[in-house]
Amino acid sequence: MMPTTPHVVIIGAGFGGLHAAQQLMDKAVKVTLIDKRNYHLFQPLLYQVATAGISPHEIAYPVRAIFQKYRNFSFLMSRVTSVDFKRKTILTEQGEVTYDYLIIAAGASVNFFGNASLEQNALPLKDVSDAVQVRNHVLRMFELAAQERDANQRQSILTFVAVGGGPTGVETAGALSELIRLVLKKDYRQINVDSVRVILLEAAPKILAGFPESLQDAARKSLGNKKVEVRLEAKVAGYDGEKLRLDNGEIIPSRTVLWSAGVQAASLMGKLGLEQVHSGRVKVLPTLQLPEQPNVYVIGDAAYREENGKALPMVAPVATQQGKLAAQNILAETQKKPLKPFKYKNLGMMSTIGRNAAVAYSFGMQFRGFPAWVVWLIVHLIGLIGFRNRLIVLINWTWDYFFYDRAVRLITRE
Amino acid sequence: MMPTTPHVVIIGAGFGGLHAAQQLMDKAVKVTLIDKRNYHLFQPLLYQVATAGISPHEIAYPVRAIFQKYRNFSFLMSRVTSVDFKRKTILTEQGEVTYDYLIIAAGASVNFFGNASLEQNALPLKDVSDAVQVRNHVLRMFELAAQERDANQRQSILTFVAVGGGPTGVETAGALSELIRLVLKKDYRQINVDSVRVILLEAAPKILAGFPESLQDAARKSLGNKKVEVRLEAKVAGYDGEKLRLDNGEIIPSRTVLWSAGVQAASLMGKLGLEQVHSGRVKVLPTLQLPEQPNVYVIGDAAYREENGKALPMVAPVATQQGKLAAQNILAETQKKPLKPFKYKNLGMMSTIGRNAAVAYSFGMQFRGFPAWVVWLIVHLIGLIGFRNRLIVLINWTWDYFFYDRAVRLITRE
Repeated sequence: MMPTTPHVVIIGAGFGGLHAAQQLMDKAVKVTLIDKRNYHLFQPLLYQVATAGISPHEIAYPVRAIFQKYRNFSFLMSRVTSVDFKRKTILTEQGEVTYDYLIIAAGASVNFFGNASLEQNALPLKDVSDAVQVRNHVLRMFELAAQERDANQRQSILTFVAVGGGPTGVETAGALSELIRLVLKKDYRQINVDSVRVILLEAAPKILAGFPESLQDAARKSLGNKKVEVRLEAKVAGYDGEKLRLDNGEIIPSRTVLWSAGVQAASLMGKLGLEQVHSGRVKVLPTLQLPEQPNVYVIGDAAYREENGKALPMVAPVATQQGKLAAQNILAETQKKPLKPFKYKNLGMMSTIGRNAAVAYSFGMQFRGFPAWVVWLIVHLIGLIGFRNRLIVLINWTWDYFFYDRAVRLITRE
Repeated sequence: MMPTTPHVVIIGAGFGGLHAAQQLMDKAVKVTLIDKRNYHLFQPLLYQVATAGISPHEIAYPVRAIFQKYRNFSFLMSRVTSVDFKRKTILTEQGEVTYDYLIIAAGASVNFFGNASLEQNALPLKDVSDAVQVRNHVLRMFELAAQERDANQRQSILTFVAVGGGPTGVETAGALSELIRLVLKKDYRQINVDSVRVILLEAAPKILAGFPESLQDAARKSLGNKKVEVRLEAKVAGYDGEKLRLDNGEIIPSRTVLWSAGVQAASLMGKLGLEQVHSGRVKVLPTLQLPEQPNVYVIGDAAYREENGKALPMVAPVATQQGKLAAQNILAETQKKPLKPFKYKNLGMMSTIGRNAAVAYSFGMQFRGFPAWVVWLIVHLIGLIGFRNRLIVLINWTWDYFFYDRAVRLITRE
C-alpha cells in the first residue's frame, strides 16, 4: 500500500506561518494555510500607513500570490474557531479541516489589560483597518481644528498621545510629529503647528526596553528633536475619548490616544483547552511541539519559550525562525529523523524615530543617527514581498524625503 | 471706503469645482471650496480600483495639497445640507458659510430609477468606497467558489453581471474579465476560469451610445474577444442578491451585479427649491447662472444645458469647461465686464476595453485597437494629479501589462 501524503495545516499567515509554509513547498507533504485575511501583512511598516506615508497594499501581499506556483499548497480564507486535537480537526467558519500535522501561528492581538475605557476609545495599531482608522482620525482632527473657535477645544483636538515606549510607539510618535510639522503644516496654514503636542507615554523609567541604555537615551533625545514630549513612568488609568487620566490623577485633554502598550496571544489560544502562561501564550517543548500533542506545533507570538531564563520576545524574527524550524521538524518526523530544538539567533534590534534618525543594536555594536536610519531603511525594504512593492515604497520614501510630502493624506471612511 | 474682497464659494471638488477654483487662484477674490471628502477623485480610473489594478490614493488627491500654495484659498470638509439664496448663505453640517458668488458643482450620484431591489443589492461604482467594495466582493466570490462543492451555487458565484453599456460598464466588464482570466486564474488553480461568466447588459440596441456605429461594433467585438458576453436590449427588472430578473422574465443566477446604468444630479439639487429637469439637473442660463440668482452658477452634472437641441452629456470635459467659464464670468462680474455664454468644445470620446483594445473618436477621426489604447493610456495618465501618482500608475500599468498581474488583490473589509 502506498503511504498517503501527510497533510500539514498552518493557522496564520503572519511571519511564522509564512516561513513555515515556504519550507514545505515542493516537499512530500500537502500544505493548507488558513487565515482570516487573504494577505500577509508586513507589520513593521504599519505605522507608516497610519501616518499617511504608504498605502496598505504596499505592505500587504496576497497569500495566494506568494504561493501561486506550488502544486502542494492550498489556501483557506476563514476564521479558525477551535481545534479538536483528538479528531485532528480544525473547526473554521467555512467548515472542518483535518490534519496530520498542525502548526499554530495565530499571532497576537492588542492587549488593553482589561481596561474597558481604553478598549473603547483608544486606537490600536495591529491591522490594516486599524492603521487606516488612525490615518483618517488624525486627518479629521486637523479638519476639525481648522474650524474650531474655542482655544481649549482646539488644544485638545491638537494633542496626540501615543502610549507605549516600545518600537511601535516610538516609531508612530516620531512619524506622527513629522507628518504634522513637515507636511500638514503646509496643508493647514491657519493652524499654528507649534501649538500641536505629540506626547509619548511610557510606564517604565526607560523607553525601548531591551536596548542598551545609551541607545535608549539617544532615542529619547531624537524624539525630543522631533518635538515629541516623552514622559516616563507615566501610567495610564483611563480614557473617555476626551480626557486621558493617569494613575497619579493627572488629566491630559486629548481627542487622540494611540495604544501600543501591549500585546497578547491571539484569542484562539484561549479556546484550545491548553494551559496559558504570560500574555496568553502557550508553553511548548524545545522542539516547538505541544507537550501532549506531538503532531501539533505552536510558534511565534502564540508560543511561550524561555532562553537563558528569559521569555523570548513577541517579535517577527522569533516567529520567522520558529516557523522554519517547526516545518523542518515536521519534515524530519515524516522521514523518521530526529527533531531539533529551537535556539534563537538574535540578529539585533532597531527602531527608527524619523528622518535621519534611528537606533540599532546588533552583535554588540551600536548604531544611531543617520547610519542607523540607512540600515533601517534597507532592512525594511528587503523585508517587503515583491519587487513592485519595494520599488513603489522606495519611490514614496525618496519623494517624501526630498519634498516633505506624504502620499496618502486621504480621509476614506465616514 | 475700500471695497471688500468678494467671497466665492464652490460646492464640490470634482472636475467642475476644481477647475473653477484653479481659475480663481491668486485673483482678487477669496475662495472657499466645500466638499464632504478631503480629496479630488479622478473618476475615469475608478473601475481600475474596482478591478484590483491600482490603489485609491493613486487617483484621489487631497484638495488642500492641490491648493497649498495659494493664500486666497480655504477648504471646508463638510456636507452641504442646503443653500439660503436670500441670505446668501450655505448651510453645512459644520455651520453656515456666507458667499458673494456661489458655484454649485455638486456632481452626480448613482441612479437606480427607484428600483429598491437594485439599490439594495447591486453594487454601484461612483466613489472610492464603492470601488473598494466591488474589489473586495469579487475577490471574496473567488474565495467562496474555491470552497463551494455545489455546481449550481458555484456557477452563480462565478457569474458577474455589469449593467449599463456606457464607457464605465464597458471598461469595468473588460477589466473584470481580464482580471479573472489572466490574473486570478493563477491564484485559483482549482477553479476552471472557462466556466466564469462576465455578462454586460445594455437596455438599448447598441453599447457606447453617442459613438459612431462602426466603433460601437468594434467595441462589442473586442469585448467578445475578452470573453465578455454582451447582451443588448436586455432590461433589468430586479435583483434579490442571488437572481437577476430581466423584464422578459428571464432569470440570471448571479451573486454579483455591478450597476453603471444611470446617474442623476446630486441629491442637494433637490433641496434648493429650484426646478429640476432631466435626471434632477437644474436649468441654467447660457452664462451658467441661475435665472433668478445671477450670483449663483451651476455647472457640470448638476446643471442642464442644451446645445443644438441636445442635452450636454454628464461627463468630465463638460464639467471642466463649465468650471473654467463660471469662474471667468465671476471675475468678469467683479470687473464689470460682460459675461460669456458657454459653448462646449467636444474633443472626442474614448473607452478602453482592456489590454491593447480601445475605441476613440475625435474631430471626425476614428481610432481602435492598439493605437486607440495607447492614446487612452496617455490621456488618462496626464489627467492624474501629481507627478508621483503618474509615475506609480505607470509602473503599475507596465508591470501588469508584462507580468499579467494586478497589484491590489486585497480583501480589506469584513
